[in-house]
Amino acid sequence: MEKNFRIYRNTFDMDYNKHFEGAFCQGNGYQFLRATFEEGIDGEEQGEIYTREFKSVTTEKQRCAITKWGTYIPTIMGNNPQLNEVIINLPYFMDFNLLADGEKLSMNRCDISDFSMVLNLKNGCLTRTFTFNTKSGSTIKAKYERFPSKKNKHLFVQKITYKAENRDANIEITSGIDTNVTTNGFNHFMEISTTTNDDSITVVSKSDMGNTITQSSYLACDKEQVNIIDNKFNVQYDLKENEEITFIKKSFSFTDMDNEEIGIEGELVKSYDELYKENSQVWEKLWDRSDVVIEGNDHDQLGIRFSIYHLLRCKEESEYRSSICAKGFAGEAYYGRYFWDSEIFMLPFYIYTNPNIAKNLLMYRYNTLEGAKENARSYNCKGARYPWQSATTGTEQCSLWEYADNEIHITADIVYGIWHYYKATDDIEFIKNYGAEIIVETARFWLDRVDVDKDGNYNLFNVMGPDEYTAFNCNNTFTNRLVKFNLETACYVIQLLNETDKIAYVKLCDKVKLDNKELLEFKKVAEKLILPDYEKVQYIPQSENFDNYADVDIDNLWKDRKNPFGMYMTHEKLYRSKVLKQADSLSLAMLFKTDFTIEQIKNTYEHYEPITTHDSSLSPINHAIVAGWIGKEEHVNKFLQYSLSLDFDSNRNGAKDGIHIANCGCMYQFIIHTIAGIDNALINEDEIPMSTSYTMPKGWDKVSFKILWKNVSYFVTVDKNGTKITKGI
Amino acid sequence: MEKNFRIYRNTFDMDYNKHFEGAFCQGNGYQFLRATFEEGIDGEEQGEIYTREFKSVTTEKQRCAITKWGTYIPTIMGNNPQLNEVIINLPYFMDFNLLADGEKLSMNRCDISDFSMVLNLKNGCLTRTFTFNTKSGSTIKAKYERFPSKKNKHLFVQKITYKAENRDANIEITSGIDTNVTTNGFNHFMEISTTTNDDSITVVSKSDMGNTITQSSYLACDKEQVNIIDNKFNVQYDLKENEEITFIKKSFSFTDMDNEEIGIEGELVKSYDELYKENSQVWEKLWDRSDVVIEGNDHDQLGIRFSIYHLLRCKEESEYRSSICAKGFAGEAYYGRYFWDSEIFMLPFYIYTNPNIAKNLLMYRYNTLEGAKENARSYNCKGARYPWQSATTGTEQCSLWEYADNEIHITADIVYGIWHYYKATDDIEFIKNYGAEIIVETARFWLDRVDVDKDGNYNLFNVMGPDEYTAFNCNNTFTNRLVKFNLETACYVIQLLNETDKIAYVKLCDKVKLDNKELLEFKKVAEKLILPDYEKVQYIPQSENFDNYADVDIDNLWKDRKNPFGMYMTHEKLYRSKVLKQADSLSLAMLFKTDFTIEQIKNTYEHYEPITTHDSSLSPINHAIVAGWIGKEEHVNKFLQYSLSLDFDSNRNGAKDGIHIANCGCMYQFIIHTIAGIDNALINEDEIPMSTSYTMPKGWDKVSFKILWKNVSYFVTVDKNGTKITKGI
Repeated sequence: MEKNFRIYRNTFDMDYNKHFEGAFCQGNGYQFLRATFEEGIDGEEQGEIYTREFKSVTTEKQRCAITKWGTYIPTIMGNNPQLNEVIINLPYFMDFNLLADGEKLSMNRCDISDFSMVLNLKNGCLTRTFTFNTKSGSTIKAKYERFPSKKNKHLFVQKITYKAENRDANIEITSGIDTNVTTNGFNHFMEISTTTNDDSITVVSKSDMGNTITQSSYLACDKEQVNIIDNKFNVQYDLKENEEITFIKKSFSFTDMDNEEIGIEGELVKSYDELYKENSQVWEKLWDRSDVVIEGNDHDQLGIRFSIYHLLRCKEESEYRSSICAKGFAGEAYYGRYFWDSEIFMLPFYIYTNPNIAKNLLMYRYNTLEGAKENARSYNCKGARYPWQSATTGTEQCSLWEYADNEIHITADIVYGIWHYYKATDDIEFIKNYGAEIIVETARFWLDRVDVDKDGNYNLFNVMGPDEYTAFNCNNTFTNRLVKFNLETACYVIQLLNETDKIAYVKLCDKVKLDNKELLEFKKVAEKLILPDYEKVQYIPQSENFDNYADVDIDNLWKDRKNPFGMYMTHEKLYRSKVLKQADSLSLAMLFKTDFTIEQIKNTYEHYEPITTHDSSLSPINHAIVAGWIGKEEHVNKFLQYSLSLDFDSNRNGAKDGIHIANCGCMYQFIIHTIAGIDNALINEDEIPMSTSYTMPKGWDKVSFKILWKNVSYFVTVDKNGTKITKGI
Repeated sequence: MEKNFRIYRNTFDMDYNKHFEGAFCQGNGYQFLRATFEEGIDGEEQGEIYTREFKSVTTEKQRCAITKWGTYIPTIMGNNPQLNEVIINLPYFMDFNLLADGEKLSMNRCDISDFSMVLNLKNGCLTRTFTFNTKSGSTIKAKYERFPSKKNKHLFVQKITYKAENRDANIEITSGIDTNVTTNGFNHFMEISTTTNDDSITVVSKSDMGNTITQSSYLACDKEQVNIIDNKFNVQYDLKENEEITFIKKSFSFTDMDNEEIGIEGELVKSYDELYKENSQVWEKLWDRSDVVIEGNDHDQLGIRFSIYHLLRCKEESEYRSSICAKGFAGEAYYGRYFWDSEIFMLPFYIYTNPNIAKNLLMYRYNTLEGAKENARSYNCKGARYPWQSATTGTEQCSLWEYADNEIHITADIVYGIWHYYKATDDIEFIKNYGAEIIVETARFWLDRVDVDKDGNYNLFNVMGPDEYTAFNCNNTFTNRLVKFNLETACYVIQLLNETDKIAYVKLCDKVKLDNKELLEFKKVAEKLILPDYEKVQYIPQSENFDNYADVDIDNLWKDRKNPFGMYMTHEKLYRSKVLKQADSLSLAMLFKTDFTIEQIKNTYEHYEPITTHDSSLSPINHAIVAGWIGKEEHVNKFLQYSLSLDFDSNRNGAKDGIHIANCGCMYQFIIHTIAGIDNALINEDEIPMSTSYTMPKGWDKVSFKILWKNVSYFVTVDKNGTKITKGI
């Protein structure tokens, strides 16, 4: 058994139950399942209808306080009249209930001992064990194992074993597919029907966006025949003392969005061990290219692997119709929608470990380009404007106008992601066929979004940068710099195609109807778009207006730091105060490190870090990255631990509504950029761009990982002597 | 019959029907009724349930496109889950249906000729006459008269007459109280019951805010006994050729908010003519003190009287629990809520013609002071912050945060209104008992709302001034000036009480817990609150950031001027463009004329008028007022006609969802400030403050009116020789 690959939950505490459901979430890139109990929790209704408030995810009170089932397939979305498109919580096929000596198993109401749950990060298998001491005096040892197969993405396997420990006991199990589920309190099923066969139960549901989802379950038992009564599997059996009974439930999910064969028959004849092995083998390969080995600090090692596990489960190579939602498909908090998190925070992990996935993440953006054009038109602009919250079409799904209208950097962030991918992989075919079109259409949008002033300079007014506690920036530095990059990249890619592939060049210009006049506009706006004079101010101001705002006595207002700062100040005041939700200028430093001197980055850090609340989970690890560069070792440790506390440590209850998957992705960037000192591929070199700095957090002796660089694998080790890179095989 | 007191509608055109329902709205200060047909319009369902969009009143599409019943009592509000508090559309007691020779009267489906509707502005009586040519060949001449009594506010009287013109005809009428009504598509009645007596039908409804509303109708007929069948009055009668039948329906409304006697029995014995006369006598007195007589231009005369009529019907002297809603209780467009319109646009009319009403409008603010304090607390501020949209409690009812959070000038506007009332009436008792408390509590709020900068100056960031197309001003001049006034007035009123009435002074300081330190704070912030250096810039800039925004090619974007400009530009772009919804700096010029030189006001006008769209109805008449002061006579005419076209002229369909009652109020200010050249009472003089200018719009020969000035009535005449003021009796 490999060391530091298992995470444990050894007590059953209702207060932290939802957190573990999210933290132990399973998935294989196709289907995702929160780590809820097969039998549910007594008294916790899952089919409740209610109106979910959409005013602020940060401060709203979630319903279903103790347990929230979650069964998701990312391409299957529903239409919520208040919230717009949301990922649908599908019928619950993990359903499995036990009566022992007539007593219904219930984790909260029965006498349970020796509880333990283990998630094996190495293969995504979840195991729950406990002893059920019935009122009648029986002692039943129970073990539940389960995993979604990485080999056959439609398959989910469960193995349940009961053993009578102290005497004979009667057991009865029922298991079906529970259709009494809602999503954000809303029923998205127009039709739903349960049918049974000799050996299976099938639920067919039709969503309110017109998709058909089919889920079929098969149950086998080693001791007794399985009956189907009232659409549920039923087995009754008298266990002898020390006898064990085992159930294998195989569930298949598929939708009308799928084309491939599912191969149910083939899977049904395989044993649990065979299926387990097949799944583990696929995972093994993924870990081989993605693992980061840390020597000297087991806690941090497990934390980093926890992040990598969630990144690995989130995506399978062939999927190009969806991106990765902000909660890693582990909860309903952001409705299964896609943000800038994908391109800026998660994409680099895939770029450097599995570029096919990176490419498919970007293909999702190409596939929603028409929606982004429609979105631009809805603002009376030409070109393409990607939505702040994206779902199936690329049109805006965010129901709060201040984000939808103002958080425009997402459009340029996507171009940054495309170029990052290209620079690290040399995949010019992707640029020719897809990327260049996005780059030009988005550049075109900016021509309409900028406002020219009387000096002939271009401005971006009313902008929300990464820091969402300042909704109305005038010339937000982050946004302006990214937009400039977007425009310059458009000019560059056109020139590149013109010089290297005339056919591709003509095809592109033809398709996007680009002429020289517009190209000159790109150039002009890129040049004249307002940016600070860093030489003069010696730091990166957030915007032209932010630093005029009034100071806030943060310590005095924010005494109970268990709650976000945002709970103690109204949005009205936040929007005009010198207090940040998250890194803004420091996010720019992270993306364009070589724009600035280390001194300027340091000044920026000193200026903004004290007024940053980290109410956004994107903030701490960004700070850790930059803190390393400027030699603030204590801050590296502090913010690394902060980052690990978001989901991995349970004390914040952080994963209850899903995983902060952008934080997971950025933790990987922390490893390469700050620990190893490898700069990102946008810095225009043929060799792996190395900075002189590296960082070793507290207790870390050695770090080693593989990295893909322009199709070649390198092996990187970092220790107290610095970073060593060797070309791999 | 007095000349120029009647407004007519002589064609029945479905496209303009809703406009006339609003324009001919009746009311007596207690109850308000849209000028809908007694029998409704076939196919126009009034009880439809739908979700009203609240995103933008300016651009939303209203439901009930052809007719919208409206029966309102201002203190009766309901709770709409999307919209918050809304005025309730009550059961429809005007209900009266006719079958002639078995054919149901329907204005849109039957053969109708000689249609005419007349509203007598002099006494608020509405008359509809027409001829109903039945399919069977009968010609029925019909006349419907009705009025809410100004003598007994609970009483509404209807008189309906039918005459068989060409031959005998059978008629059958049914009349009840129709409970199938909704408000903004929502049913606000928790319980509703209809009961009948020998001679009456009574509906008792219980609102979702817990109020009980009782409506009773009595029907009399001069020819035949009235039966009650299925909760409706029913009369069948064979009319001989040339015979006439008359019905008198008296309806009484009262609620659990009322204390006074209703006197139903006494009213039932009176004849229609008696009731008519009683009503007319009350109106006569109101007109006597309020009329503005214009010689030389009948159109404008009638237009001004139309405005005065609506102001007179909106308020009765004794009502202090409500203000005047933005649509003059003539439609559901602004949900029956109260805005700054009351204090800035309507209040002066009452101050100078009927100060008791002015006082009661301000008493409404005093009665909602606790709500305003709660509102301040919800923003973590001390003191009182009046809500942008106020209803019964004084807490915020606006469901759009950008208005609720940023349009803070309302709080200082109320103080302006209080002081205006005091300066014009010398009612120091009102100040002592109520006004001073409001003035201090609101001043206190500003101490928490301002932000100090590094130079020690005070700023108001993220402010929406009067111009709602700029939601995020930095130091909006209008707002800052009004806030400065609020703070200075607080200092002044404290000093005044201290010097003139020690008991009142101590009582006040005790009640509001005011000490000298806070008073010094008021003074300091008033002094250091940022205002432009007018000497230097020579105009009134809207704010510090507005004039940096990009120019907009308004003419090119706005070709179809039937629609508001706002339909051709997104809010996102409006919020960062140099285009105005309404007067902002010019509103300040209107309120603080003597702050500026005429040259500065003129420069301001030249600067902003060309980029003002007047998408807000508050804008045109404000422009007319200022245009007169700076000698732009053509603009005076243009904006006066614009103002008259909002509701009075029907071509814009302007009154369909209610009356622009603030425009009506401001038209009166136009008469006194611009036509007569009387400045407002805030200019600190004992005499009526006269400017040297006066203005005569096109075709006007002479204007005369009465005005109350510190309890003395003056008679004012203006002609081509200027303004003459004589002390009245």
